[in-house]
Amino acid sequence: MLKAVGIIAEYNPFHNGHRYQLQQARHLSGADVVIVVMSGNYVQRGEPALLDKWTRSAAAIENGADLVMELPLNTAVQPADRFARGGIYALAGLNCAAVAFGTEQPDLNYAQLGQQINDLPAEPAAFIDYSQTYATQLNAVYQERLHVRLDDPNVILALGYAAANASLMNPMTLVPVPRVAVGHDEPSAVGHFASASALRQMWTSDFASAYVPTSAWQLYQDAPVVRWEDLWPYLHYRLLTMTPVQLREIYQMTEGLEYRFIQQNRDAASFSDLLQRVKTKRFTYSRLSRVALYTLLACTNQEMNNTQGPLRVLGFSPIGQRYLKQIRSQEESTVITNVNAKNGADTAPYGLTIRADRVYTLVNGHSQNFGRAPFQYRKDE
Amino acid sequence: MLKAVGIIAEYNPFHNGHRYQLQQARHLSGADVVIVVMSGNYVQRGEPALLDKWTRSAAAIENGADLVMELPLNTAVQPADRFARGGIYALAGLNCAAVAFGTEQPDLNYAQLGQQINDLPAEPAAFIDYSQTYATQLNAVYQERLHVRLDDPNVILALGYAAANASLMNPMTLVPVPRVAVGHDEPSAVGHFASASALRQMWTSDFASAYVPTSAWQLYQDAPVVRWEDLWPYLHYRLLTMTPVQLREIYQMTEGLEYRFIQQNRDAASFSDLLQRVKTKRFTYSRLSRVALYTLLACTNQEMNNTQGPLRVLGFSPIGQRYLKQIRSQEESTVITNVNAKNGADTAPYGLTIRADRVYTLVNGHSQNFGRAPFQYRKDE
Repeated sequence: MLKAVGIIAEYNPFHNGHRYQLQQARHLSGADVVIVVMSGNYVQRGEPALLDKWTRSAAAIENGADLVMELPLNTAVQPADRFARGGIYALAGLNCAAVAFGTEQPDLNYAQLGQQINDLPAEPAAFIDYSQTYATQLNAVYQERLHVRLDDPNVILALGYAAANASLMNPMTLVPVPRVAVGHDEPSAVGHFASASALRQMWTSDFASAYVPTSAWQLYQDAPVVRWEDLWPYLHYRLLTMTPVQLREIYQMTEGLEYRFIQQNRDAASFSDLLQRVKTKRFTYSRLSRVALYTLLACTNQEMNNTQGPLRVLGFSPIGQRYLKQIRSQEESTVITNVNAKNGADTAPYGLTIRADRVYTLVNGHSQNFGRAPFQYRKDE
Repeated sequence: MLKAVGIIAEYNPFHNGHRYQLQQARHLSGADVVIVVMSGNYVQRGEPALLDKWTRSAAAIENGADLVMELPLNTAVQPADRFARGGIYALAGLNCAAVAFGTEQPDLNYAQLGQQINDLPAEPAAFIDYSQTYATQLNAVYQERLHVRLDDPNVILALGYAAANASLMNPMTLVPVPRVAVGHDEPSAVGHFASASALRQMWTSDFASAYVPTSAWQLYQDAPVVRWEDLWPYLHYRLLTMTPVQLREIYQMTEGLEYRFIQQNRDAASFSDLLQRVKTKRFTYSRLSRVALYTLLACTNQEMNNTQGPLRVLGFSPIGQRYLKQIRSQEESTVITNVNAKNGADTAPYGLTIRADRVYTLVNGHSQNFGRAPFQYRKDE
């Protein structure tokens, strides 16, 4: 029986820091197989991924991952707590023995904190303060009751993983991986390491190559780049032709946001202009960007609240392929390897991801689902 | 009291034949004022107008029209019978004493034929033959029972005008204007006359100037051109992200057309490619083009079945302005001269036209409603 460690990732794009994390996950967990569940063509902050899911998963497979599975859209594009829970449920469903995650605070007792978070009351009274974002209020509660510093998004995610794992009765060992050099969102670079957001900003320059494994850089040369501004004309048009009643059917379009979006869109000159016009103290940019993305992709409450969804195989190494066979023989599988008329139907659980990917293809130019097979790594095992 | 003759037009674009028709309408009717009710930025065949409503109405005012009013979208973009009825109701509401229309068969007794059409049974049994278009079946009934040749769309429209006028108890005298030289849809040109469709095809060449009044040609030089293919990216995106259930809320999306549109759109490379893929014996290209336009503009059954709507003043000559004052003192007015927060609200009757024009502006680049005032002709009266 092969033992697996899981990682929840976006790889937007994959860089040297991710390669290091894959090595550490394997080393610290002692696992035979490293499994990654990865966002598809849209990421948690409500943006299109810079590079498509095939390019990013191939880069990961060539640099230490044994199996990359796609998180469905209704898991991947969610607030941090839902994203974390969806990722943990996916890894647990894949029979991982451990889950590894990067963190600036590797010495915290994550298992204990996860249990404590689950024991917190579901809706603290403080959350109804509409002059602050939900995230700010959540952090205040965590800091006050758990005595944890939450000034880094990786720690917030790590606590989300721990809580979700605890809610499942801890099927996986938690493996904190100390992060090196640069934080997730710092637009800086140190040595051979740069954050993904710094990389996205420097993408058009050749400087980016210093922070990316050579094999990944080669993959990236053929990959079309997709940014929000490329999708802006479609969102702009969509908002021009939707009524407030129709817009309220969009996931998380609440508290009058539908009127703000419709009104502000009329004179907005770009996506960033729209978000600045819509922004209030109540909502973070990430939340508003996600709501804009749900609008672009016509994601309804019903679709997004159903967090069930199959995991699609994007790529594997030989040992990753063996692991896939191992788990398939063990249980009812929610893994799909190829999209066909049945699992790819509009009403199928994977239908939402397919619809969203068709919009991605408007800019990217490459079919993302039908006719695409997993990337197979053929180097010596 | 000024006496008015009305014309129902599209002017897509305005040309020498239209100028001739305006002269004949004035001459044959003996009216003091020539009023035109004109389609706005979208025309009856389900297409964006080549030039915007301001450019086309200014060309008409400079070449013989005294008053140009915009037909609201829910009248202008309809099957021929509804378009004809909406136009006649609008002219009757403007107190016109006569209505003039071009026809290849000016000697028919239109008043009598109009009454006969109204006496026909509403739903002849033959209409449920799904292997033929509605238009084909309608024409067969007309030819059989009225003994009229219907090989020209102008005659079909003229009969629609006559029937609508008869249904109102004939408030207006019918004034057939013999058409000169070329038919409405013939892609040819004779002398100084060319059809509007021929003009649209030759638009990028300077040849078109020979068939257009000089003052109109000058106006056209600054006017951005809008064609269906310019709007195609938005329709393509929209169809990628709509479910059959959502699409069925679109006006005239019936008989399973929603599935054909969704399926065929996925691989369609252009608007014309889409229409060819969707086409069946049952539907004309015009019908399918209208349904595509309703989809682009998100026109619901409720919006399009409500054929009430204000007429907007697009331009006037001095005598046209006097006529406007005359009819305003006579009755409750459904005429609007400027769009403001009240009559331009999303839920106002003119809201549908404003929404549709915002999409037109995506290509045309010029605001079409707020802040636009009627064109005023200042030459000697």
